[in-house]
Amino acid sequence: MIKVSIVGSGKVAQHLSAALSDADQVELLAMYSRSPIAFELPKSTILCRELSALPETDICIIAVSDSAIADISKALPFKNKLVLHTSGTVSLSDLSSTNRRGVFYPLQTFSIGRPIDFKTVPICIEAENPADYRLLEKLAKGISNSVYSINSEQRKALHVAAVFANNFTNHMYLQAESICTNHNISFDILKPLIAETASKINFLLPAEAQTGPAVRNDQKTMNEHLKFLPKHQQSLYTAITKSIQNDQKL
Amino acid sequence: MIKVSIVGSGKVAQHLSAALSDADQVELLAMYSRSPIAFELPKSTILCRELSALPETDICIIAVSDSAIADISKALPFKNKLVLHTSGTVSLSDLSSTNRRGVFYPLQTFSIGRPIDFKTVPICIEAENPADYRLLEKLAKGISNSVYSINSEQRKALHVAAVFANNFTNHMYLQAESICTNHNISFDILKPLIAETASKINFLLPAEAQTGPAVRNDQKTMNEHLKFLPKHQQSLYTAITKSIQNDQKL
Repeated sequence: MIKVSIVGSGKVAQHLSAALSDADQVELLAMYSRSPIAFELPKSTILCRELSALPETDICIIAVSDSAIADISKALPFKNKLVLHTSGTVSLSDLSSTNRRGVFYPLQTFSIGRPIDFKTVPICIEAENPADYRLLEKLAKGISNSVYSINSEQRKALHVAAVFANNFTNHMYLQAESICTNHNISFDILKPLIAETASKINFLLPAEAQTGPAVRNDQKTMNEHLKFLPKHQQSLYTAITKSIQNDQKL
Repeated sequence: MIKVSIVGSGKVAQHLSAALSDADQVELLAMYSRSPIAFELPKSTILCRELSALPETDICIIAVSDSAIADISKALPFKNKLVLHTSGTVSLSDLSSTNRRGVFYPLQTFSIGRPIDFKTVPICIEAENPADYRLLEKLAKGISNSVYSINSEQRKALHVAAVFANNFTNHMYLQAESICTNHNISFDILKPLIAETASKINFLLPAEAQTGPAVRNDQKTMNEHLKFLPKHQQSLYTAITKSIQNDQKL
């Protein structure tokens, strides 16, 4: 049994606590949250309101905002335990060296109230020594079928890639939705297209799946689109079109 | 029974011929293709190599590239039939007025060799008179559960929206994949994120689903991302970030 504690009460902490509570070889011994939490914990889990009250566990997972990770790691009331953070951007060395250090980065977008099957969430792990890596791997494999060894440099790359795959993609959806709304069209019409576009990358590389006026340099259609768009969308359209055409040349 | 012919042999023509062949109240009487076709047609369907040999049907669907639609519509060897095109950008009035005119725009991305359940494909229809609209609606409802009345102006808007939802989104996937490849990371790690990002818009508006450094104005993370990216991705990152932050102000 791996005894685990979680520091934090946000989206990642919430989804992680649910997954760890369900895992066979894991005991979620304690959770620290300054404010009352809005989700259920197993009866056996101790909810701590003071960080100093957090009990020692084999692994402590700090699942808080990036800027708070370093300070929290310094304030933990124990030494030489394995302490992990869950961030895509914070370096492993930002954790206080009073404890052994590692990273447990679940690469998924979490929403409050929307259940996620953690078995499908890729977990990117990193530790400073092989024994800790094995413990971390055991924990990760207890809740997910996709566990990857990812070093700090790769994790930074993944985080930027995730910005394109999630944040920027969602911004494309936002443009599509606003165009629909401005023309009294239901955004629902576009949902099958969005689903199929996402699904396609499971059998085609993005470069193979690319279609549209930019990639075929259909200037007539692009000019019509630009005339049609409000100014702030014109510049976005132009920038992405340019990027699609540049990628063609690479 | 609605007798239908299709002009064309590309992706849309191929998927459409399969859907129409399966439909109950439709007979795919003929198909015109200059070159040999690489997919199967019902035995009863006549394959014409000359446009002048295309028999009269209740409806003729021109599923060819945008630039060829007008000329093909002029060269059809019959009059006063209902002739449709399948384009998101071409105006209804680009069709020759020797026949009655309409639009049958299936809003989906089609790939060669990948089957699509046409029942889920939104069909945007438009006709010049109510009787033709009803015939067109009957045809569309015979193969799809999502049929929408969309006028030419709305169709133009939808086409631009689809560029964002499909072409530009796929370009975001391409960036994510290239970042992974450059850092020896499997693109598979990002696939659950991509799937969840697309799935989220079924229960959250894109504006509600937006997360990431741009929307929370996390300059530190954005600077680190920019330092990390090659030049051509930097300018794309900057342009989309600016657009996300502008949309916040609207």
